[in-house]
Amino acid sequence: MLLRMSTLFLRTLRDDPADAEVPSHRLLVRAGYIRRAAPGGFTWLPLGYRVFRNVERVVREEMDAMGAQEVHFPALLPREPYEATGRWTEYGDNLFRLKDRRGVDHLLGPTHEEMFTLLVKDLYSSYKDLPLSLYQIQTKYRDEARPRAGLLRGREFTMKDSYSFDVDDAGLDRSYAAHREAYIKIFDRLGLDYVIVSAMSGAMGGSKSEEFLHPTPIGEDTFVRSPGGYTANVEAVTTVVPDEIPFDGLPAAHVEDTPDTPTIDTLVAVAQQLFPEAGYTAASTLKNVVVTLVHPDGTREPLVIGLPGDREVDAKRLEAQVAPAEVAPFDDFAKHPLLVKGYIGPQVLGSTNEAKIRYLVDPRVVAGTRWITGANEPGKHVFDLVAGRDFTWDGVIEAAEVLPGDPAPDGSGPLELARGVEMGHIFQLGRKYAEALDLKVLDENGKLVTVTMGSYGVGVSRAVAAIAESTHDELGLVWPRAVAPADVHVVATGKDPAIFEAAEALSQELVTAGLTVLYDDRPKVSPGVKFKDAELLGMPTIVTVGRGLAEGTIEVRDRATGEREEVPVAEAAAAVLTAVRG
Amino acid sequence: MLLRMSTLFLRTLRDDPADAEVPSHRLLVRAGYIRRAAPGGFTWLPLGYRVFRNVERVVREEMDAMGAQEVHFPALLPREPYEATGRWTEYGDNLFRLKDRRGVDHLLGPTHEEMFTLLVKDLYSSYKDLPLSLYQIQTKYRDEARPRAGLLRGREFTMKDSYSFDVDDAGLDRSYAAHREAYIKIFDRLGLDYVIVSAMSGAMGGSKSEEFLHPTPIGEDTFVRSPGGYTANVEAVTTVVPDEIPFDGLPAAHVEDTPDTPTIDTLVAVAQQLFPEAGYTAASTLKNVVVTLVHPDGTREPLVIGLPGDREVDAKRLEAQVAPAEVAPFDDFAKHPLLVKGYIGPQVLGSTNEAKIRYLVDPRVVAGTRWITGANEPGKHVFDLVAGRDFTWDGVIEAAEVLPGDPAPDGSGPLELARGVEMGHIFQLGRKYAEALDLKVLDENGKLVTVTMGSYGVGVSRAVAAIAESTHDELGLVWPRAVAPADVHVVATGKDPAIFEAAEALSQELVTAGLTVLYDDRPKVSPGVKFKDAELLGMPTIVTVGRGLAEGTIEVRDRATGEREEVPVAEAAAAVLTAVRG
Repeated sequence: MLLRMSTLFLRTLRDDPADAEVPSHRLLVRAGYIRRAAPGGFTWLPLGYRVFRNVERVVREEMDAMGAQEVHFPALLPREPYEATGRWTEYGDNLFRLKDRRGVDHLLGPTHEEMFTLLVKDLYSSYKDLPLSLYQIQTKYRDEARPRAGLLRGREFTMKDSYSFDVDDAGLDRSYAAHREAYIKIFDRLGLDYVIVSAMSGAMGGSKSEEFLHPTPIGEDTFVRSPGGYTANVEAVTTVVPDEIPFDGLPAAHVEDTPDTPTIDTLVAVAQQLFPEAGYTAASTLKNVVVTLVHPDGTREPLVIGLPGDREVDAKRLEAQVAPAEVAPFDDFAKHPLLVKGYIGPQVLGSTNEAKIRYLVDPRVVAGTRWITGANEPGKHVFDLVAGRDFTWDGVIEAAEVLPGDPAPDGSGPLELARGVEMGHIFQLGRKYAEALDLKVLDENGKLVTVTMGSYGVGVSRAVAAIAESTHDELGLVWPRAVAPADVHVVATGKDPAIFEAAEALSQELVTAGLTVLYDDRPKVSPGVKFKDAELLGMPTIVTVGRGLAEGTIEVRDRATGEREEVPVAEAAAAVLTAVRG
Repeated sequence: MLLRMSTLFLRTLRDDPADAEVPSHRLLVRAGYIRRAAPGGFTWLPLGYRVFRNVERVVREEMDAMGAQEVHFPALLPREPYEATGRWTEYGDNLFRLKDRRGVDHLLGPTHEEMFTLLVKDLYSSYKDLPLSLYQIQTKYRDEARPRAGLLRGREFTMKDSYSFDVDDAGLDRSYAAHREAYIKIFDRLGLDYVIVSAMSGAMGGSKSEEFLHPTPIGEDTFVRSPGGYTANVEAVTTVVPDEIPFDGLPAAHVEDTPDTPTIDTLVAVAQQLFPEAGYTAASTLKNVVVTLVHPDGTREPLVIGLPGDREVDAKRLEAQVAPAEVAPFDDFAKHPLLVKGYIGPQVLGSTNEAKIRYLVDPRVVAGTRWITGANEPGKHVFDLVAGRDFTWDGVIEAAEVLPGDPAPDGSGPLELARGVEMGHIFQLGRKYAEALDLKVLDENGKLVTVTMGSYGVGVSRAVAAIAESTHDELGLVWPRAVAPADVHVVATGKDPAIFEAAEALSQELVTAGLTVLYDDRPKVSPGVKFKDAELLGMPTIVTVGRGLAEGTIEVRDRATGEREEVPVAEAAAAVLTAVRG
């Protein structure tokens, strides 16, 4: 295919778009690949849509190769199946809901677990029909509170979502492993760096879950890794629990005057003054943080989280733990007089206590640990309050931030933290959806058994941005060959008609050989502008037909490495084909 | 690609689905190509999606070949651009509207005129940038009052929509002609019969417009054709206007008692009794039909249509004339005492008359024609009421039904009527959208001129159904090679392992040669069921490996013609390749 710059629907921009926060967004807009159409909604322009379709092709080929079968659902879906699984409500504001002309409720599909479950129920009935993996490549909708970073977090985007159906857990493990393998092939072919991290399955329910994260400082997800190979999404990191300490010989708790110590810093300073020998630090204190849980049905509940004072509550870890409830600030001290702001202590907390406020503690708070914490009156703290002896709790929660140097839970060394963008997610849903929608098959003994499912996603439009993000340089985009909108960019510079004739002939020869050629045939554009555009647009191979032609040569350049070579005209096509096909 | 029936996500059904009204819907569901997911929303199953993608590929190739460039817009769109052109309101109940979490209005795109106009405005500014044709293949949404006929009229469907941008009318003519040519190629390649008919551009505004109709008795559209080659959508048919008749010598109007004649039939009977010599028929009467126009802003207006009594008002022709207003029944006689139900006459009608009711007449009502019509009192009619002498009107309207035998407006003979499904629509929008959204470019003299546009659509998902509709036979689907989900269906019958080995080897050989093979490798299914499935599924070539294998032959059969041939095993692959590739 020959794409002529003289007629291509393309305008490269000199200036960054005002709303672009990240390089991929800036460059994709400046290079004329995408254009904003709505909040969180982008239009693919011709070059961008070619990249998109290349990514889509790679994903489709690998899904087909693993034996998954392609289907395609509507995006506009009826409410009932999502009501049956609770997601109509649980999705909260993130779901686009609408009514049709008869007033019937519909939604725009965020993912299609329910619909796939019902489809399989509709057609299949026996263990002999399984295993089965189905997928679609489809437009998805989420009413993001803050669409951002261009294609990285939009309200309308394209995902490959697939679902596996097995009769037993061993089958689910195999389907999960097959998807994991296929995803590795997909991201390898796309040339996209990734880390596979353990993840929480969150609002989806289910058990085992991993994410494919593309490491980048602009990522919204935080993950950890250890020297020994442990990796996890920060939400999934589990704390190494210290041993319990016998109560024998532990001092009795004692209340001290600690005026004006509403913060951990002020408290530690006073504690050090009172007991200089004790070596108190922020980690010696037990901070009790009150939040409000907003359940999907709208009910609100206060929750207190007790954690060592040297750590903050990590909002994402907390949200992952309490989902589908959402977390809101707590501001109702008036209604809960037992909670003394700045001086809350565990003695009044817990479901069995008078205030009946749920109290969950960090895993580091084990029996026998001693804490400085609020005494439930202004200006007073209690010291040597021993967990399990002097106070109890309703349960444990992984809500404290993970800090660099924390030990990996598998003993593989200290954790380091990094950021990434979620490119893929695989998880074992188990029987949650099959149970809610009654997907059962007959097993070998003629007994009805509930099917177990997996759910697997790849962000297709997001991958375009992630590839741009990871391969660009200061001059512009640098596409890997697998997804580039054209194999080669032929640039004709100067005014000599012979140059344009040679460039045209070379372009035609390359097209005949099966390549897609972007040919800059614009007659009145300066070489400088053409070169700048070529760098910005980022085809992997750039061929310049210009001054060298008088000496019978054409320049072939690699966009990524910058390596350039003067090639005799007669050999130019062969040189390009070698560059493209290796 | 090899598709094995043993693992393919497919269940063929013996019974027709209860809600299927037309053969394509019945067969596509029974053969496991599609499955209902929502009212007017279908899920593509693996075989169906392969047909869909083949159709899409043909459309894309021809659009690329004509020089149109592919882009892709979101389906979830902001209200503002549609507000600017009035379509937010004009679309009425057919538009899916929704609010995001901030309460901001959005819609699901029915077509994208506004968005394309704004995109071109965003990037282009000079006559040198034009002509330009852009297209997308995209999911569209319309909240149909009565989704029906499976894929033929859904609420979510796929269209190729394109838009042309030109600096002047001559350019628009060229862009329109290029699209017309491309559509001819598309429908020829799809093997889909079509008639190109003149059409009204309706709610889209604009001037020249043609539809590509696939003739079929189950079609929702009516069109006409004449022996001399005139074709038109019934909405676009223009009436041959008779010559005016001089008033000289025409008798004076006279009122007669015509008790109990509220209908044309009863009136004609009485008129014949009163004046046996006059030769009165229904065509001698002038029927005045009252309807209510509901304008997009909700205001209601009575409208009276005067037409010869031998014709009914054609609802579609009327709607096309008054769009974007909609037509509702008139039931407000109480508020309009001058309208005497069953005896309405033109003497009280028209904007200049006392009642100020708009009065439009059929083109056959020309000056000098004489009519029997209501005298505006119960039981009385007026005879010899002469148009232009005894009554006037506000305008002419093409709302009367077209009857077989009516003359073609171009003199090419009597019209016949037929039904069809709209497969494509091309029309010259002109400057309506460019004006509303201010799309201007500088012309050669540096003067700003408004761009003129065309809009062109092909129903992609609908084409799948239309092809099924036009090619099926009593046994099942019969796919043309260009869109078949597989090139060949290999059926292994019997229990002999040698049969399955030979069928597998042949299938593999065909796949290696580049074909897509559907292989019925199910071990425990009877030959009868396998043959029935093969007929139902409709691959163009069916190969049976069975009893003949003992004598060293394999049967190759053409699904469409039923021709069959016994071929030596060693030559089977070659025979299939010849059948597939011609």
